[in-house]
Amino acid sequence: MSVSDAGEFALIARVVTRLRSPGPPAGPGDDAAVVPAPSGDVIATTDLLVEGRHFRFDWSSPYDVGRKAAAQSLADVAAMGATPTALLIGLACPSATPIEIVDGVADGLRDECALVGATIVGGDMVSASEICLAVTALGDLAGCAPLTRAGARPGESVVLAGTVGRSAAGLDLLLAGVRDGPLVAAHRRPSPPYAAGPALARAGASSLVDVSDGLLADLGHVATASGVVFEVDVAALSALVPGVGVRHLLTGGEDHGLVGTLPAGAAVPTGVAVIGRVLPAGSSRPGEPAGSTRAGVRLVGDDIPPDLRDPQLDGLAASDATGTPRGWDHFRR
Amino acid sequence: MSVSDAGEFALIARVVTRLRSPGPPAGPGDDAAVVPAPSGDVIATTDLLVEGRHFRFDWSSPYDVGRKAAAQSLADVAAMGATPTALLIGLACPSATPIEIVDGVADGLRDECALVGATIVGGDMVSASEICLAVTALGDLAGCAPLTRAGARPGESVVLAGTVGRSAAGLDLLLAGVRDGPLVAAHRRPSPPYAAGPALARAGASSLVDVSDGLLADLGHVATASGVVFEVDVAALSALVPGVGVRHLLTGGEDHGLVGTLPAGAAVPTGVAVIGRVLPAGSSRPGEPAGSTRAGVRLVGDDIPPDLRDPQLDGLAASDATGTPRGWDHFRR
Repeated sequence: MSVSDAGEFALIARVVTRLRSPGPPAGPGDDAAVVPAPSGDVIATTDLLVEGRHFRFDWSSPYDVGRKAAAQSLADVAAMGATPTALLIGLACPSATPIEIVDGVADGLRDECALVGATIVGGDMVSASEICLAVTALGDLAGCAPLTRAGARPGESVVLAGTVGRSAAGLDLLLAGVRDGPLVAAHRRPSPPYAAGPALARAGASSLVDVSDGLLADLGHVATASGVVFEVDVAALSALVPGVGVRHLLTGGEDHGLVGTLPAGAAVPTGVAVIGRVLPAGSSRPGEPAGSTRAGVRLVGDDIPPDLRDPQLDGLAASDATGTPRGWDHFRR
Repeated sequence: MSVSDAGEFALIARVVTRLRSPGPPAGPGDDAAVVPAPSGDVIATTDLLVEGRHFRFDWSSPYDVGRKAAAQSLADVAAMGATPTALLIGLACPSATPIEIVDGVADGLRDECALVGATIVGGDMVSASEICLAVTALGDLAGCAPLTRAGARPGESVVLAGTVGRSAAGLDLLLAGVRDGPLVAAHRRPSPPYAAGPALARAGASSLVDVSDGLLADLGHVATASGVVFEVDVAALSALVPGVGVRHLLTGGEDHGLVGTLPAGAAVPTGVAVIGRVLPAGSSRPGEPAGSTRAGVRLVGDDIPPDLRDPQLDGLAASDATGTPRGWDHFRR
């Protein structure tokens, strides 16, 4: 049975039934949903995923695609230090799409939400010539200040929750024809450290981001926004993520690990590791002129590929992106 | 210059600059936005619009498409009795898309938001083979209860704010080759009665919806959810929207007028008109068996096309949709 066989209203009824999760009631199924925002603010983020660009059904099941699509947006909420509360889903797909694909994606979205106690409260379904998923996640800060990119200060620790590089390593395996194993599984279905976001907020973290474009790129944005230098210990990073090469660790996105900064003396929450320290911009290292280092990421360690060792001294501001594999430019893929 | 010439980060910077509006600050441009929700709840709704299905650039300018896309979601918020506060925008488009299209859509989104004091606080841009806009709107109830579909009670008035049928009449003119005039303009850029939503909530309205699928279809959903019969006076409706035929008035969507119910004795807010009354389900009219009428919409008047006069007695529950022009089934267009 295809989507057009079912018809829109029946399809919506079917999906709504699948999406219904135990726990707090979802929205009223009206023009819009009503979502509690007990702290008086709501965290909100939107992501789009397009078939063939962000996921492939020959590599991932519809269920995995749903899990991953939800994870991407829920991790963005966690990266603000908030707890996800609700998802809204837009699904554009061809009328001939097998209904099993819609069912699988819906089940995956629902189950990933269940991990954090969030519910799917609304959505829209339309016909299109390719499958596009629009995921909006909402969250609550529970009284904590939001963890933005501009709060890192010299003297703090650089911390990581979750992993980096495993999804990218799994993607390379898929491209090479490998179809199973833990890294391929990590690409198909990431496991963001959702609880670490609010835990870091409560611990007093000064900045936090979700690593979606690669550690160098995302930390670079934080360093630039904060006007500081992040010195990252590549050996410490490697030890946290066994079996993944340095290039993947530094440039791979989509594990949705959380990276940020914690003031000296703050208790490091469970599941969070220190991977470096924050230095003032203008710092230099032996053999370089004093004050030559602009805000950005500096790597220390023996095993750093030369092309990654070099550019970090120039910082990694968004406007500096040149298509080198330090991040991900959706329009230049 | 195309989207790929600009590159993602430069394009985002460009669009963010265009979207910035006077008034309250937008989100921090971080993993997610922080949106005030002073009443402790947030209203949330998502819509998708696909080029060639929901809009055509040979009929509408990019600016009009942006205006209309924002209007559709902002009207959903107003239909809950809430005031829109923020929009999140997902834009999927081919890399070769002229940047003027992105600019125009962004300007339109911004200007429609400005009408209600909402700001664009976040979004995502990805490449795709067709243009798809995902619009999420958030809103605040200011302490009023949300206006849902299930609250209508016998003895109340059926009320309309804004217009119905003008957009559909304009679409038929466009299909016939007409390219200007007030109805064509109404199709390109609807003018939802945003302020009437919160005004009706304050006045004590018992139900409210946005007419996006046609008055008969949308009122039918309310009647079914509320378990009542809506008796709509077609002559009163016609008098409110001069120059539009009865079929367009009853089946045309996308003006995003607001229709709902107001208890007897409530003050009718400015810009709101009474178009009928609420009867108990089981009512009958002369010549019909007593109790034969299920929940649904009943039309009264002399000028009702026979195919529309008949089915309303069976109600217009969502599951009854059969592809007749009483609504809009996105997967059967």
